[in-house]
Amino acid sequence: MNPVEIIKIKRHKQTLTKEQLKYFIEGFIQGSVTDYQMSAFLMAVYFNGMNEEETYNLTEIMLNSGKIVDLSFIKNPKIDKHSTGGVGDKTSLILAPIAASCGICVPMISGRGLGHTGGTLDKLESIPGFNVNYSIEKYIEILSQTGAALIGQTSELAPADKKIYALRDVTATVENVSLITASIMSKKLAEGAEALVFDVKIGNGANLPDYEESLKLTKNLLAVSKKFGKKAIAILTDMNQPLGMKIGNWMEVEECLEIMDGKKNIPDLLEVNNILAGAMIYLGGKSSSLDDGVKIAGEKINDGSAYKKFLEIVECQEGDTNYIRDYKNYKRSKLNKKIYASKDGFIKEMIAYDFGMASIELGCGRKKVEDKIDYLAGIELFKKCGETVKRGEPICELWAENEKRIYNAEIIIERGITISDSVPEKGKLIYDIVYQ
Amino acid sequence: MNPVEIIKIKRHKQTLTKEQLKYFIEGFIQGSVTDYQMSAFLMAVYFNGMNEEETYNLTEIMLNSGKIVDLSFIKNPKIDKHSTGGVGDKTSLILAPIAASCGICVPMISGRGLGHTGGTLDKLESIPGFNVNYSIEKYIEILSQTGAALIGQTSELAPADKKIYALRDVTATVENVSLITASIMSKKLAEGAEALVFDVKIGNGANLPDYEESLKLTKNLLAVSKKFGKKAIAILTDMNQPLGMKIGNWMEVEECLEIMDGKKNIPDLLEVNNILAGAMIYLGGKSSSLDDGVKIAGEKINDGSAYKKFLEIVECQEGDTNYIRDYKNYKRSKLNKKIYASKDGFIKEMIAYDFGMASIELGCGRKKVEDKIDYLAGIELFKKCGETVKRGEPICELWAENEKRIYNAEIIIERGITISDSVPEKGKLIYDIVYQ
Repeated sequence: MNPVEIIKIKRHKQTLTKEQLKYFIEGFIQGSVTDYQMSAFLMAVYFNGMNEEETYNLTEIMLNSGKIVDLSFIKNPKIDKHSTGGVGDKTSLILAPIAASCGICVPMISGRGLGHTGGTLDKLESIPGFNVNYSIEKYIEILSQTGAALIGQTSELAPADKKIYALRDVTATVENVSLITASIMSKKLAEGAEALVFDVKIGNGANLPDYEESLKLTKNLLAVSKKFGKKAIAILTDMNQPLGMKIGNWMEVEECLEIMDGKKNIPDLLEVNNILAGAMIYLGGKSSSLDDGVKIAGEKINDGSAYKKFLEIVECQEGDTNYIRDYKNYKRSKLNKKIYASKDGFIKEMIAYDFGMASIELGCGRKKVEDKIDYLAGIELFKKCGETVKRGEPICELWAENEKRIYNAEIIIERGITISDSVPEKGKLIYDIVYQ
Repeated sequence: MNPVEIIKIKRHKQTLTKEQLKYFIEGFIQGSVTDYQMSAFLMAVYFNGMNEEETYNLTEIMLNSGKIVDLSFIKNPKIDKHSTGGVGDKTSLILAPIAASCGICVPMISGRGLGHTGGTLDKLESIPGFNVNYSIEKYIEILSQTGAALIGQTSELAPADKKIYALRDVTATVENVSLITASIMSKKLAEGAEALVFDVKIGNGANLPDYEESLKLTKNLLAVSKKFGKKAIAILTDMNQPLGMKIGNWMEVEECLEIMDGKKNIPDLLEVNNILAGAMIYLGGKSSSLDDGVKIAGEKINDGSAYKKFLEIVECQEGDTNYIRDYKNYKRSKLNKKIYASKDGFIKEMIAYDFGMASIELGCGRKKVEDKIDYLAGIELFKKCGETVKRGEPICELWAENEKRIYNAEIIIERGITISDSVPEKGKLIYDIVYQ
């Protein structure tokens, strides 16, 4: 066995045995397989794919590259949610406190912004003091204390995934169903959850824009979960336009607070959030059906439990709760610019991908690993797809630290908005609920 | 422009502009494009190919990454031959002196053994003292003096090719027509030749075993030559069985000496050699037709000019001419083993690829860059395809320094030989001659 042979097998669209995959992945961790060999391999996988068995084996090898957290001493059901990534997708910040306030333990290992999509860790770090870097021991302690922990991937959990992921991001080998499945599942299996809810995003702002590919990913995630003895539900949700009314790290935390504390009604965000939270409640045995779970989720927002739990989590993870309580102060970057409608009509498109890319230009995300995030930059939407608009009416507002950022974002945003003369077809918000 | 975007364009099977290719290749040389990004790119090219324009641009960028030798002060026509690589393929050692003795200048930058195929440099280095590492200045001096120089790629000539090639070899991205074309042509255009003869190998022992791919490569090589104003002829020759009767570095030099000095008739080797030499003579204007060129090539062997010129080249490149003159001493590695026919019949197959792999096992080539070559190891054939054989009659003989090497090679060789009961179909030796 040598690395070149392994690459050739995949290049020839043949199936790799578990031993071959193990040799290659473990070799990569130990250094006998180089990063350039791994990236050639990843590109061959991009083109030729992996079958279900290979995907399962890859997941297992990546999972076993690190520690697996044992949360069995915690009596509450341990349920996590994972989103495949989107724009304005902030549900983790609402559903984790909801589930925790229902007596569910939420062991949530999250990621950072990637490409045009935002990341839960970056959003949380917009809260001064909020810490996402804990040892496994401290992570377990936080979980036991508040019932939810939102932290980053430590180098102890699925290090093979961490090392491979870093490479995929810079070699254009992200968009492959098997690689995505193994990456998600190796982390989710390591964190100690016993059941999983997947939010598989559909549309231009998703990491897999092709619908068929998203269905394949859904099937893969549920199958691999089952093989590892984890219950799971997948919800396919829309990502053709941004979710909710705000994009940007602090602005998204703020929107969650407007919902949890201010009881503001943001229909699309609430609908997606509550079905995901409902699925967690249902999988955790805290409701008799998914619908009941959705109802309970709504109640936990309305009776203030979610907000209370959120403050508890922030405090426990060293975040400044006064900063949180002061959310109505609407902290923003220095400069702002409104984007106005060029004619009367209906909002036909607000392309999520473009809004995501524009938010990166504003400073909400990183173009290079070393870039610093501007936590107070972002975009507020005044309109959503399907709504009427008058010429000169503002559609959205951009916030950033300098003119250049505003200018760069504006170009992209204007490309992403389409106004039509006739009523546009109403898109779906929830495409499907897929059980195991 | 960023490296990931460039990789994505090729991944999506779109065409790269010259500027994009330049950005990527020059970035790789300068370090802003990493080796893992280059290898992902190479694998994307492997799957999605490059069109003629891209191949031409890639060649030009790689050519311009280094110096281009100016041989215009040499009045004689400057003609080189390039083989796509095979097993027992030793024609460079005969045709270079033939052409030089016809008043053709032969600026030949050669390579080392690669995979199962041998390399001219390794063969030459089996002559004690023979030097293949010269500066461009010294290379020009040798050329002016003897009319032929057989040296290795210096770091000054097409360094982009050198760096990319090293990566392709270890990432399973060698077998792509465009990459092969750009690699060959960037070197050949840099060395100063004004016309080129290509020996495109066909069959299991070729680097591109697929016939259609070899035709595509032929077309590419001729088209790119033309674009750069170089005359060229391609000869498609058989590489389903080894060429000639000997494989191994010194043993191949020896076989050339048996032909040039001993006037031994080795039909397949002579036929391929003379047509290639004939094409060089014809392109150099030293004959009125290719056929005439072939005749002249034969004469240059028979009248001793080729042998005389070969000794001159060896002396000029610091090789030991006494060692050469002593070739009838048949220097060999310590151990030998004959392979016998298991039954009466006809030799149906002597798979060139297997003979090549077996020769590596014997020590004729390297498995890793740091491996040392055993120059006196090799294989002598007593039979060629189509010949009759009696049970117990020797088919070939292996030579190596230790039992393990003999054992490993024997297993492969036995797999590579097939004896049939009926007369096998006679394969072609020269498949085609393709003019520009």
